[in-house]
Amino acid sequence: MEINGQHYRSIWLESVDPPTVGIVDQRWLPHEWRIAHLKSWEDGATAIREMWVRGAPLIGVTAAYSLWLAACVGEDLQRVAAGLRNTRPTAVNLQWAIQQQLNRIREVEEGSITETLLQGAETMADADVEVNKSIGQYGLDLLKEIHEHTGRPVQIMTHCNAGWLATVDYGTATAPIYLAKEAGIPIHVWVSETRPRNQGFSITAWELAAAGIPHTLIVDNASGHLMQQGKVDIVLVGTDRTAGNGDVGNKIGTYMKALAAQANGVPFYVGAPTSSIDISLQSGQEIPIEERDPSEVTQVSGLVDNKLVRVRLAAEESTVFNPGFDFTPAELVTGLITEKGIVPASPEGIASLKLT
Amino acid sequence: MEINGQHYRSIWLESVDPPTVGIVDQRWLPHEWRIAHLKSWEDGATAIREMWVRGAPLIGVTAAYSLWLAACVGEDLQRVAAGLRNTRPTAVNLQWAIQQQLNRIREVEEGSITETLLQGAETMADADVEVNKSIGQYGLDLLKEIHEHTGRPVQIMTHCNAGWLATVDYGTATAPIYLAKEAGIPIHVWVSETRPRNQGFSITAWELAAAGIPHTLIVDNASGHLMQQGKVDIVLVGTDRTAGNGDVGNKIGTYMKALAAQANGVPFYVGAPTSSIDISLQSGQEIPIEERDPSEVTQVSGLVDNKLVRVRLAAEESTVFNPGFDFTPAELVTGLITEKGIVPASPEGIASLKLT
Repeated sequence: MEINGQHYRSIWLESVDPPTVGIVDQRWLPHEWRIAHLKSWEDGATAIREMWVRGAPLIGVTAAYSLWLAACVGEDLQRVAAGLRNTRPTAVNLQWAIQQQLNRIREVEEGSITETLLQGAETMADADVEVNKSIGQYGLDLLKEIHEHTGRPVQIMTHCNAGWLATVDYGTATAPIYLAKEAGIPIHVWVSETRPRNQGFSITAWELAAAGIPHTLIVDNASGHLMQQGKVDIVLVGTDRTAGNGDVGNKIGTYMKALAAQANGVPFYVGAPTSSIDISLQSGQEIPIEERDPSEVTQVSGLVDNKLVRVRLAAEESTVFNPGFDFTPAELVTGLITEKGIVPASPEGIASLKLT
Repeated sequence: MEINGQHYRSIWLESVDPPTVGIVDQRWLPHEWRIAHLKSWEDGATAIREMWVRGAPLIGVTAAYSLWLAACVGEDLQRVAAGLRNTRPTAVNLQWAIQQQLNRIREVEEGSITETLLQGAETMADADVEVNKSIGQYGLDLLKEIHEHTGRPVQIMTHCNAGWLATVDYGTATAPIYLAKEAGIPIHVWVSETRPRNQGFSITAWELAAAGIPHTLIVDNASGHLMQQGKVDIVLVGTDRTAGNGDVGNKIGTYMKALAAQANGVPFYVGAPTSSIDISLQSGQEIPIEERDPSEVTQVSGLVDNKLVRVRLAAEESTVFNPGFDFTPAELVTGLITEKGIVPASPEGIASLKLT
């Protein structure tokens, strides 16, 4: 995407020697646009674990580059792979990306491993952009249809950030939005905060503002009320892992939006690259739900006097439960928008994608 | 309730001369226990408008005392009543309490008005306590039944604060919880944050901690996931205004909890004093929904270095929509727990209460 007149991806090769990968350090958004430089696989693991980068597709590509960084200094790649796998348990793309890289070097000569891993990461990054563009095209058709039907700006609700900063470029849930903007389809996006980490306000809203797309901020609690009042035409979200039956694992709170969508007849679509579909899982019950640090719930980051500080919202001694994800039963999902087309969230729909 | 070994209500007569009403200034919780002194009706209006006090029943009693404060200095009481009515549009108790006071003085001699209004406020405060105790008794039966059935601690979810600090004492949704504690029924409460103003974390959690009741904090987004995972036995919330058909107006986000409860077979009960039931409204669609300041959404208050500060969460230029309430359709409500007993949330159920 264009930021300050320059084209950016969320991750890029900065130099081969010394081996360096550039990323947008997303912890500072929306208040500051900051670049970080990954120089070791541990830098990559930290960036994933501490959410300098986040979003299932971007996590995968970051891990792929991290394996290259490890190979550059002769690390034991199996050990590195294990370390990377542990950084975030829910996103299947992470496992998938690491496996792709390990497969690539299985039959490769010792001397070519580093170069192969770099090529692998670059190819994966390029492929992600193409996948998202394709998701965007299929999703664009849905938005066009709604606009033709209503004759007014399409009211889109999203959750968390499945935007270009969650992928390498375009985003999954946002790709149709960016393509609609290019195609001149009038749209308006309801951006929900997405507690506990507020990626809606800090990243999605920032992305949309930077792209000049009309949007309005709401607290997560207001999502159902808006749908009940007829103010939402379509919900578009991403996914961290979709099971073989079509149950969708995504950021905590997605399930409640899906319930509200169904109760009010609002179509609920998931931008789902096929790499995020895990046919080894029978249902959403099997999706591992990452439990994250209590401090994410009891504290929040914000700006005061132009400085970013963390403030405490709750009393020190309170017990906290902080599941990072939930799963939305397939029957609440209108369709999965994949790079191969839109399919029903069902075993048959997923089988039609012919994944292996 | 007992705080630091002393019995408190949330509002009380501090002195007749000079006319002064004491309140808990709830803006500082959970970080600080602070008392404020209302010395004029404008103090009362400010306390309601800026949420030093909040909660439908407490708002009503604060308005009743404010009319007394106004009478003490010979204000035009019709003008004062109009000013007080405008402070918060959704809570029907506010309108009800003001009307009760005006009715009381209709046939009273000029010289007795001040005393009559003070008696009216005191009577209303005492009656609120009795109403809540009664709601607590009926709700306690539900909790006992669940405990007898499961043999383990009753898992209760609530929203916002319908606790003793939202009323004069005991609370509406929390009255059954406090009585269960007294009765030795084991309970655990899931406390959801309640963005944008976080009354769950700042007030409900504080209340429960002060009373020694086990509880766990969650973000609002996690409510559905918990119900889906079978971790909630009953949802207990309050109401600001319930329509004649049983639709329940309450803090924004209540509707989404009700949807999740229905989807997962969790009973959803509303602590509803009959004073909060507005039989003049045919349905929830007619409940006026207060739209509050955007800064409640884009900023949040928290503690840093032992000082309470407001931090900015979102970029300055974003548009915001901030509805304070939503309504939950009657068909999602298992029952209304009133001081006269538990009735179905339906025209018939409400008619059986014989309200006028």
